[in-house]
Amino acid sequence: MKGEKIRGELVGGSVIVPRAGGEELDRKSFGRDCREGIKLTLVEAAYLLSRGKIEVMEDGERLGFEAFFERASAIDETFTERYIVYRDLRERGYHIQPSPTDFRIYPRGGEPGRVASRYLLHIISERERTPIKKLLKCIETGENLKKEVILAIVDEESDITFYKLKKSDPRGKEAGRMEDLKRRALPHGVNATLLRDRTIIWNREISEELHNQGFYGRLLERYLQLSLVETAYLLKNETITLYQEKSGRRRVRYAEFTELAERIEPDFRLKYLSYEDLRRRGLTPKTGFKFGAHFRTYREPAITMERTTHSEYLIHAVPSDHAFQLSDFSRAARLAHSVRKQMIYAVVKSDNTITYLEVIRKKM
Amino acid sequence: MKGEKIRGELVGGSVIVPRAGGEELDRKSFGRDCREGIKLTLVEAAYLLSRGKIEVMEDGERLGFEAFFERASAIDETFTERYIVYRDLRERGYHIQPSPTDFRIYPRGGEPGRVASRYLLHIISERERTPIKKLLKCIETGENLKKEVILAIVDEESDITFYKLKKSDPRGKEAGRMEDLKRRALPHGVNATLLRDRTIIWNREISEELHNQGFYGRLLERYLQLSLVETAYLLKNETITLYQEKSGRRRVRYAEFTELAERIEPDFRLKYLSYEDLRRRGLTPKTGFKFGAHFRTYREPAITMERTTHSEYLIHAVPSDHAFQLSDFSRAARLAHSVRKQMIYAVVKSDNTITYLEVIRKKM
Repeated sequence: MKGEKIRGELVGGSVIVPRAGGEELDRKSFGRDCREGIKLTLVEAAYLLSRGKIEVMEDGERLGFEAFFERASAIDETFTERYIVYRDLRERGYHIQPSPTDFRIYPRGGEPGRVASRYLLHIISERERTPIKKLLKCIETGENLKKEVILAIVDEESDITFYKLKKSDPRGKEAGRMEDLKRRALPHGVNATLLRDRTIIWNREISEELHNQGFYGRLLERYLQLSLVETAYLLKNETITLYQEKSGRRRVRYAEFTELAERIEPDFRLKYLSYEDLRRRGLTPKTGFKFGAHFRTYREPAITMERTTHSEYLIHAVPSDHAFQLSDFSRAARLAHSVRKQMIYAVVKSDNTITYLEVIRKKM
Repeated sequence: MKGEKIRGELVGGSVIVPRAGGEELDRKSFGRDCREGIKLTLVEAAYLLSRGKIEVMEDGERLGFEAFFERASAIDETFTERYIVYRDLRERGYHIQPSPTDFRIYPRGGEPGRVASRYLLHIISERERTPIKKLLKCIETGENLKKEVILAIVDEESDITFYKLKKSDPRGKEAGRMEDLKRRALPHGVNATLLRDRTIIWNREISEELHNQGFYGRLLERYLQLSLVETAYLLKNETITLYQEKSGRRRVRYAEFTELAERIEPDFRLKYLSYEDLRRRGLTPKTGFKFGAHFRTYREPAITMERTTHSEYLIHAVPSDHAFQLSDFSRAARLAHSVRKQMIYAVVKSDNTITYLEVIRKKM
């Protein structure tokens, strides 16, 4: 854009420029038509001001870039992060339409009005705790508008990391009918002993069968150790009958077991609901402890596969009222990426249904 | 060891075998001499029992492996994890002397009495929250005994991950005198504006100087943005004079700034003490947000280095009364390893001194 600078007025949290001379701005997808002319958001105005394309006045006084920046920060406490992201994406060639809640991003070279926007981008500052509900709402809006949802996290050094967010529907290769059949094929009423926080099945043949059939537990020598969630699952299905040595041998039923388990693992209930749902989906969940997640999952249930297949998903269960510490989010996505797995959050609602939320690092 | 099984008696939480016939056990470094014969710990007895080398009696009754295992779990609630680790290390060829608090590990092929033990190993179950104080105590004992301290974490699937723990003394290439000189070479009383959670220095020459001199902040266009810890540091050193736009321009002094910062970042005080100490050590700390840690540090302060050098340490500040969630520990170590950095915890004591604790994944 050559020629004279366009003069805009800072009023009511926006910068208004006259329509005459504003056609160039419009062509480059800055601002929106309004009664008084073209209305620029604060970030758009700051960007154009930094590039010497406009001048900004307020109550008869001219605001230089620095003064405008400080005014804008005072008007909108999210201004700085929004500007950092806006500027970054503009420099990459994207066209952007900012709204109070998000940015509509248009593919490089695509102009609003001519091409549909591709991304719906939300900006979050590192130190905010972000409620899951907010992220799910973003995704829902994205689905309705058929746009990819991007999260831009701005850290304390003004560095930006972009993430793609989407709902996920993780399934194993044998979801549904096969999984059901497999479950019915399991033994019934096998004796298992509860030792503090682990269950042992001593019977060698059954140990091998359970381990090979559905990759339950871990074979140590020739007996099987089950984790708490595996114990609960097999107990609920009546595959095992559970006993405890406590002044003699006594039976432990499902309800009592889950109470015991919750005392040992405070997030047991969450974990268990996820475990059950993942099994229902034909996935084989094992502990994700080494990766800082609840589960790693295999799409193939057969044990021989474990030696040749790497687990594909890292799944971490969170309650629907959870609020993310963004550094956790950032770290989880990075770790998953470094071990070539997908990071998925299993959001457990109060009615016990689960929504799966996938987080993928995105290079814009 | 060939020949007949040795018969041991389970009494008082140990298994006693007669000295006669026990020489083989001794040669293979099982058990310790005691008045009644050779005293085996529960894990040693379980191991020998599983290998058919001994029989175990209790009150006239013979206990098979399963029964012994269940009895041992009832006697010692840590038995299962200890056994899992003991067995794993024996299978790898190590000689081990278990004590109630730890395992002394002897190098492969080395026998206790002939060779000094190399490792002092502590076993922790995944679900325990481990107080830092305990880890520091382990390291102290290790230093006194000149042994490498190993942490063995057993997860819910009985998988073991080993970590080496040591005190660290992270230093930059220009620690001490040079760092002091550099600090004195910084400008004095530069104007800086506080905007919510970031500080801006508008002066272009000074921005460049601060950024190049000590890699402070981030240059955006030609102005400098400082994080909260950087602001505090430069404010305390009187490199900057801080102002805020609030019904006019007002000055913000150090004490008020730290209060503001603590409201924005709850762990600000911890972070700041670490930042200061790291600078004192000649390191250049920048945000470790992307890696889920407080800082990444460079040993070279010059900006040109950043383009050619990768940061070497990931440093996370914790209070001395912190208790680790072991999955955090596991995840932090793995992430650091995946990005070729060392994971260090800066433990901030109540007197504000800092002890650095390095965690390295170890393959035994």
